[in-house]
Amino acid sequence: MKYVRFSHENKVSFGILEGKEIKVLSRSYFCSNSTETGERLPLQKVKLLAPTEFGKALCIGLNYRDHAEEFKLPIPEKPVVFMKASTAIADPEGDIVYPRDMSAHLDYEGELTVVMGKKCHKVSEEEANDYILGYTIANDVTARDLQSKTGQWTVAKGFDTFCPIGPYIETSIDPSSLELETRVNGEVKQHSNTKNLIFKIPYLVSYLSHVMTLNAGDIILTGTPSGISRLEEGDTVEITIEGLGTLRNKVV
Amino acid sequence: MKYVRFSHENKVSFGILEGKEIKVLSRSYFCSNSTETGERLPLQKVKLLAPTEFGKALCIGLNYRDHAEEFKLPIPEKPVVFMKASTAIADPEGDIVYPRDMSAHLDYEGELTVVMGKKCHKVSEEEANDYILGYTIANDVTARDLQSKTGQWTVAKGFDTFCPIGPYIETSIDPSSLELETRVNGEVKQHSNTKNLIFKIPYLVSYLSHVMTLNAGDIILTGTPSGISRLEEGDTVEITIEGLGTLRNKVV
Repeated sequence: MKYVRFSHENKVSFGILEGKEIKVLSRSYFCSNSTETGERLPLQKVKLLAPTEFGKALCIGLNYRDHAEEFKLPIPEKPVVFMKASTAIADPEGDIVYPRDMSAHLDYEGELTVVMGKKCHKVSEEEANDYILGYTIANDVTARDLQSKTGQWTVAKGFDTFCPIGPYIETSIDPSSLELETRVNGEVKQHSNTKNLIFKIPYLVSYLSHVMTLNAGDIILTGTPSGISRLEEGDTVEITIEGLGTLRNKVV
Repeated sequence: MKYVRFSHENKVSFGILEGKEIKVLSRSYFCSNSTETGERLPLQKVKLLAPTEFGKALCIGLNYRDHAEEFKLPIPEKPVVFMKASTAIADPEGDIVYPRDMSAHLDYEGELTVVMGKKCHKVSEEEANDYILGYTIANDVTARDLQSKTGQWTVAKGFDTFCPIGPYIETSIDPSSLELETRVNGEVKQHSNTKNLIFKIPYLVSYLSHVMTLNAGDIILTGTPSGISRLEEGDTVEITIEGLGTLRNKVV
């Protein structure tokens, strides 16, 4: 099932995407009592929004072997965990705003993203799946020139619009072996498969839930493969993951 | 004015603390149309809660010269910025839960904390004050043995209950020269004055607002002075800041 959050006639709603049509839901898919209203809308009549307004975006650094090698960094023994500010959220098809007053080097990072469906704390790897709503795509946009300045990545990763997410949450997919491709202006820049993740999704959910409570709507960006390069104003960056569609954003 | 958030007869409310009495407000002090209801409650009849359920807790590392020297680290040229997870929030008088399954070294860090009152983006140092609601105290509890393991501090600083905050928000105080003291089981461990902050509050608000939108209720932990040491189960940690009361939490 493909869950979408969208605006239509100035109202934000939730729905299920079927082909080119949206079946409107009574409330958010994060609510257990959400039901189909019977209303249907053509996809082309709505504006898709980020499918979750996350409280926390937990991100895993260096989780593809090739990306760690690209930066000449050792394979981590434990996940490298950082957060993106919740205000960094951007819609699918939304603009990535280049913060020229503070940075002169912007990179994309295409990432398979886990969307939590239920509150959880200290769950096992075996239980992890019960707490996941589904999967989507995020772009972990990074001001690379600010990343190493102070050691912590909050500023470099936290600018407004630096976390485009979407276009939908797929609830019925096995995330363990999905092709991932990032293109800039149509040119392929990143190409990998989620089977190359160092720390797998059940492990990540379990590990993070032993640190902090994960809430419905929280997301986990699972890391990016090699092939990082720059974005400039005017560029269109597209991330396609098998079964999850394409997240497309323009840099302005 | 001292703003408090509290629970009374299983209902969460907002109020103004005057001496030993609370004047109940019609809604959150983050809402511009909050008014006094006329109801008054004795302080001893309520349970004080964290005075803001923040969306973002932005924290400044190494912002007291003596603390940087304590860790033999250079004085940073730009603020070291990291975030604490919003799920780390704990109430004044709430417990700090020692995550023994993952850490064997817990430290307190007493910090003057800014509470934002209005949404802001790219404000100047001169404008910063207009967007601040007031000041409170936070304890940036840290699993020190996990802090340097992966370079990023999200895990070490992000466990549930690792961000006690309160007891109230003082809206009428000049934060530029306040005595700060941290005691463990009554013994003074940290003693400094906020005049020793390397990056001052107007600068921090302006700098952070140039990176990301700050929302009402977001907090900025301004850093901790020297005198860091361990917490163990059973310890009571108290942070007193001149004019802001005492934040008291027990480690369990």
